[in-house]
This record gives sequence, C-alpha cells and structure tokens, in this order.
Amino acid sequence: MAPASRLDPAVPERIVALAQRLYGGEAPDFVFHPQCFLSSGHFAGADSARAQAFLDIANDENFDALWFARGGYGSNRIASGVLSALTIAARNKTYMGYSDTGFLLAGLYRAGFPHIAHGPVIADANREGGEEAVIRGLRYLFERDTASLEPSISSTTPSVAFNMIILSNLIGTALMPDLASHVLMLEETSEYMYSIDRMMFHITAHPPLRKLAGIRIGRCSAIPPNDPPFGQTEEEVVRHWCTVSGIPYLGRADIGHDVANKVVPFGRLPAV
Amino acid sequence: MAPASRLDPAVPERIVALAQRLYGGEAPDFVFHPQCFLSSGHFAGADSARAQAFLDIANDENFDALWFARGGYGSNRIASGVLSALTIAARNKTYMGYSDTGFLLAGLYRAGFPHIAHGPVIADANREGGEEAVIRGLRYLFERDTASLEPSISSTTPSVAFNMIILSNLIGTALMPDLASHVLMLEETSEYMYSIDRMMFHITAHPPLRKLAGIRIGRCSAIPPNDPPFGQTEEEVVRHWCTVSGIPYLGRADIGHDVANKVVPFGRLPAV
Repeated sequence: MAPASRLDPAVPERIVALAQRLYGGEAPDFVFHPQCFLSSGHFAGADSARAQAFLDIANDENFDALWFARGGYGSNRIASGVLSALTIAARNKTYMGYSDTGFLLAGLYRAGFPHIAHGPVIADANREGGEEAVIRGLRYLFERDTASLEPSISSTTPSVAFNMIILSNLIGTALMPDLASHVLMLEETSEYMYSIDRMMFHITAHPPLRKLAGIRIGRCSAIPPNDPPFGQTEEEVVRHWCTVSGIPYLGRADIGHDVANKVVPFGRLPAV
Repeated sequence: MAPASRLDPAVPERIVALAQRLYGGEAPDFVFHPQCFLSSGHFAGADSARAQAFLDIANDENFDALWFARGGYGSNRIASGVLSALTIAARNKTYMGYSDTGFLLAGLYRAGFPHIAHGPVIADANREGGEEAVIRGLRYLFERDTASLEPSISSTTPSVAFNMIILSNLIGTALMPDLASHVLMLEETSEYMYSIDRMMFHITAHPPLRKLAGIRIGRCSAIPPNDPPFGQTEEEVVRHWCTVSGIPYLGRADIGHDVANKVVPFGRLPAV
C-alpha cells in the first residue's frame, strides 16, 4: 500500500465546508483529534499517542461517531490495549474506516459493538474525485443514507468487509470475530497475485470461516506485474478457493481502496 | 519475492557434476522429475502436475530424499491433497526446501514425519555464489553434516524455520503443526517493514504460538523502501512483539533467502 503518516492539515477545513454545503445549520460538528497530525516513522504518532487518541474519542459520550482519518497503519499495535480500556460510552458510537483500521473494526465487532462499518475515511478527500467518497461516508454516518451502502447488502444476511491481508492477519488471534453465516467482502491493493492466491488459501482454509454465507471479492487495485503473467484474475483465484473450501462464491463487491468504496455496516441491516 | 516458474534446464547437469566432485563414485543418484521443467503461469506446471510429481517421488521407496527444486510457489494449492495421498514409503524420506515449500514442510511435520528440514533448494545454484548453498544442502542430505546446520540449533530444544508470510498464512489452518516448546526461526524477503510488523503481530498473537520456546529472526532481505522511513529495523519489530506477547526473543538466525541459508531440521537434533 501507499506510504502513510499524518493527515494533511488542509483536509479538515474542506470536510467542514463540505458538511456545511450538505447540511447548512444542521451540519454535524467535527473534532479532529490533534493526533491525526502527528507523525512517528510510518505511523501517525507513537503507539501510545494513537491509542490515547482513539480512547479520547471512543470513551467520550459527546461524540456520535469515530470516523478514522486515514488507513490506520499500526492499528495492530494498539488494538488489544484500547479494546480493554473502552467504557460504556464507547459502545453506541459508530466506527467507520477501512484498510488497517480493520484490526480495530474486527475487535469492536467481536466485542459486540453494534455500529461498525467498513467505508470511506477522511483522507479519501485527497484522492482524485475523493469528495464523492467523503460525502458517501458522511451521508451514512449522519443520515444512514441507504444510497451509501454496498448494493448487495440486506437485512436478511449479515455482512462484513475487510482488506484481505488484514483479515489474513486476524485469523487465529483474539481480535477475530465469529463470522459464521456472514457474507464476507474482501478488497486489496498493491499485493501480487501470488500473494492474493496465498491469502485466499489462508482465509478459506480456516475452519471457522468455512461457515461463511459466502464471499464477494471487491476491487483488487494496483496489483504489481508478475513475470511470467500469473495466469489467473483475482476473481478466478477467489472462485478456485471457494470451490475448494465449499464456501459459496457470490460475485463482486463494490468496495476497494478507491473513491467508489461503498459502506458495509457489520452485521445485519435493520429491517425497514 | 522474485518471479518464479520452472527450473533452469542447465542446473541438473551442474548439480550432478558437483556431487561427483564431492563424492566421486559414492555420489548419490539424482532424478529430476520432468515437472520441474514445466511452466503454467506463475507455477512450475498445473496444480495436478505439481501434486503428482510430489507424490511420484514421496511415495517411491527408492528415493531417500525429496529435495525441492525451487521455492515452491503454489504449494498452498496442493498441500492438503498430497498429504492425504502419502503412503508409508513417504514417511522416512528427508524433505528439504524453504519459502513457499513451507506449506508442505508444515503439513509433513504436523503429520509426524521425522525428517523435515528448512534449507537450500536446487535452484539456489543459480544465485551468485550459489554453489556454496547447494553443497551445504547436499552435505546435509547425504552425510547429515553438522557444519550445514544453523549454528544455534541443538539436541535439547526442537527447532523449526519458516518464511514469515508462509507461517502467517498457515495459522489457523489444518496444515499448522503444534510448535509448543520449539524455537521458531523466521526469514523474509521483499516485504515492506509495515508488512513485517503486521505479520509479527499475527504470529505472536496466535495463542498456541505463545508456547514457543522463543523466536529468532533470520535475514529480511530486499525490504522495499518506506516513505517516510519506517523507523524500526526488523530486529526491533521482532523484539517489540516478543515483549508484547511474552515469547522469549533469542537473537538472530543464520537463515534467509540467500546463499548463506543454513539448514534447520524440524524438531530436535538426535543426541550425539
């Protein structure tokens, strides 16, 4: 994946202006935690600073949502610590992000938190056409706008979505939720096809995941070229492993490391 | 990792000549299975051809060893099938390889096969200075030469060695052996530091691996540059996760994707 670090300091003003444009006087208040602008090597601040920032927002009952600013590199380093420090105020908040934030989303979902979503992050504003992604995320968080949702999700079958390598790295750990009967949507970026093949082996060979309702494959972008050509597309690879494992293959998912990334709330949608 | 495919057809003659030079009339006979020279996209032949080749050698009592020709891309695709088709003749053979062959080495070790080793492969002959690696492998296979061994291994504590991403992809699958009380040696190549950090989280967060006797980190080569710099070396990352998990950190291991890669027999060395 692309190199990470802190949030571009120009982004918050644009987010606030965008919310004003959409909602005028009804626009939600945004608080950008100072940690978003820290930098420590590859991460947006030291482990302790990132953990404290997460807890500052999660445990404050004045916030309705914790919207991840970026992809969450280093979430693996803070997840178990912050999960054990969450208070009751953290429980009814909505948490939304994707990529490495999946370590935290997984742990929160496993802990039974009801409002977890895989979807756009604030920093998507810096992608070309990224305003569309931010608006989609905001409309989901503020209105539960169904137009923001990945189109296949329903109130009948629970869903989850993960970056493929993050899910692979969750298997067999205390952060991994029970995904029996769920539709699992996966997306990936910047991984070789041989790596995608190995990860799909890993995911479909894990016995608890054999109980999935099915797998959908999102966009796998920026796959580095293979020499010789790998010989199979990501969809062919996913089909192969679904056949081997007996997990139903359900088709494509409208998610990815891109501005078209749709929102996937974890679990079952509320019946209308 | 570097692109793969079939074995260079010029290698077998060099291997045979090398064995003659070392052992003269006592040199072992080599049979290069025709599958080694096949190519199918990223792999050295179709899944069925690679599986059959493995079984042709493993189940033939006339062979003392199955020495992997290359890194074994696609071993994940054939491992469970071939393991269920092994006969008694397969059991007392020595199996040696590294990289993706780890999927097979893991499954064989889990099945209780006594002579599994992480070590050089035939195609190392094509690396600069690779003759040294092939000689080391041959001396281990043919003489059990102790000079071929990774220097920290002993008859008191069992050891195993894996490519880091292969072990990560084994966690939670039916191929994963019980590694309680083992020293685990890991090596990696061509992975980003952030990926190494996530994999070390994964490996050390898996509860059965908390029972390891310790972890040694081998060489992590060709790490792509990070922007900004990651800020920690692979040894610092491994130390971090050992501290977090309570698994003893035991220092470096003399293994890697290189010609200096020493042999690590799985399990305990026979007492002398």
